[in-house]
Amino acid sequence: MNAEQCAALLREHDRILLVTHYNPDGDTVASASALCSALRRQGKTAYLYPNDQIGSRLRAYAGQFFAPEGFTPDYTVTVDVATEKMFARGFAGKVDLAIDHHPTNSHYAAAECIDDKRAACGEIVLKIIRALGGFVTKEEADMLYVALSTDCGCFQYANTDAHAFRTAAELLELGADNADINQVFFRQVSPARLKLEGMIYSAMRFYREGRIAVNLITQQMLRETGVTEEELDDIAGLVGRARGHRVGITIRENPDGTSKISARCGPDFDVSALCARFGGGGHKMAAGCNIQAPPEQACELLLQAIEELWA
Amino acid sequence: MNAEQCAALLREHDRILLVTHYNPDGDTVASASALCSALRRQGKTAYLYPNDQIGSRLRAYAGQFFAPEGFTPDYTVTVDVATEKMFARGFAGKVDLAIDHHPTNSHYAAAECIDDKRAACGEIVLKIIRALGGFVTKEEADMLYVALSTDCGCFQYANTDAHAFRTAAELLELGADNADINQVFFRQVSPARLKLEGMIYSAMRFYREGRIAVNLITQQMLRETGVTEEELDDIAGLVGRARGHRVGITIRENPDGTSKISARCGPDFDVSALCARFGGGGHKMAAGCNIQAPPEQACELLLQAIEELWA
Repeated sequence: MNAEQCAALLREHDRILLVTHYNPDGDTVASASALCSALRRQGKTAYLYPNDQIGSRLRAYAGQFFAPEGFTPDYTVTVDVATEKMFARGFAGKVDLAIDHHPTNSHYAAAECIDDKRAACGEIVLKIIRALGGFVTKEEADMLYVALSTDCGCFQYANTDAHAFRTAAELLELGADNADINQVFFRQVSPARLKLEGMIYSAMRFYREGRIAVNLITQQMLRETGVTEEELDDIAGLVGRARGHRVGITIRENPDGTSKISARCGPDFDVSALCARFGGGGHKMAAGCNIQAPPEQACELLLQAIEELWA
Repeated sequence: MNAEQCAALLREHDRILLVTHYNPDGDTVASASALCSALRRQGKTAYLYPNDQIGSRLRAYAGQFFAPEGFTPDYTVTVDVATEKMFARGFAGKVDLAIDHHPTNSHYAAAECIDDKRAACGEIVLKIIRALGGFVTKEEADMLYVALSTDCGCFQYANTDAHAFRTAAELLELGADNADINQVFFRQVSPARLKLEGMIYSAMRFYREGRIAVNLITQQMLRETGVTEEELDDIAGLVGRARGHRVGITIRENPDGTSKISARCGPDFDVSALCARFGGGGHKMAAGCNIQAPPEQACELLLQAIEELWA
């Protein structure tokens, strides 16, 4: 259904619970928060599922909407959730409406408002809020800007299209404070994170004339810098900054000494095949696995496997 | 004059030379290149002044338009040039038209097309090209996307407004390849640059509970990493990534052992006053100076001066 039909459906219901996905990102959390705010302005009782994985930056937007203990919804809506594996088990089979932009949505909900051409679910939610009552508040515009900008890497990622730019323009005109939001989400990180990046870039490894780039993050580095888990946001993306690389690997030492692998590549390799060799999986250009070996040894195993796949 | 009047004026002239500014950035070079392309499509003889400071990434767009030796223009146009100090001395008093977006434009040209509300001069040039003949080529759209995105930090800087987002949307619809351009200008850097960033972040200094952040770049670091001057692009911006800092200083050792200072701050300090103490200047929130002392000593002198100004 389209945004107008979705708004009409929401208007028919009350006691609405909005559910975000596991490993919550800006799009799921801030889109759900904006929709929750708009539903309340329509006189609805609406809450967010209190997803305890939501970090402090996003909690600043979502926390005010967390459902109190014991709240039993009459209508359950997921926002930006592709499959039932992506949210708390208790909701399986009980989702009334899915609002989503993933082409991989597994059609788990009774009703759907899906537009897989949109860079962010926030773009769909903006339309739904407009259809609900016309008006969009400054706070909702801020939230939707967070949703959009985080899902397209502040307009750097390849999913940024003309529609995303036009949505951004609209949100700024609605009062979204892009300068402040960009500082918090994109421009600034903690001194501990900067110290860790210093260590990572200093120790970055290149193989095969720079075609393979490897970042190695040890428990020692995490302890020494004192970074929190939240400060590790997108740490596997750093390897992608190396010009000329075709395969980028991030090896992170687990607390038990084994290695967690994140692999990314350009169109002329297949990291899902690489990770499958170690029992992992993912997409052709972004995949992951765990290797039951310390980082240095995992690195050797991965390099061997890449050579074999390249041969 | 507006874009239509500017286009009409350009149509009246031929043998046009487009002049870019010193320390050329993406906006001056790519805007001038796009305009040069459009003027040639109108049957004009048009060239770019062969600004030898243009680095390889921008030369890929501009090089094809460089004026041959001996070309004598009948009409000289500056693009994105605020003052006569910003271009080759030979043009002083001889500029027929200035196309610019700087509020500080010193009105040195016989005619002006200035819109100081625009984030990038490329936005004005897009309107002029539209007015010249309606059509914008894919190559021109690429160039104007380079101009716009580089001047607003790929839509991260505070100058990014709704108009800038709408211009970006328009350029994408005209065929601009934002994904590829973002890779080259924003996402990827050389391994040598990454190694230098590693050194810089590892050695980053914080004073006054993190309110003062200092990056120090020595000749030793430049030699060891082998970075080129072009790879140092926006190196003084790295200090701005430190969350919680209010004054950010970058001290770069000159080849003769003295120190080049770049200082930036938030609204509660004035780095132009700081730099003025050392014979430099600039704006309240971004200024620079030279200190006739090695980096460590320069750092001490700056910290003392900041304390005094803060007192």
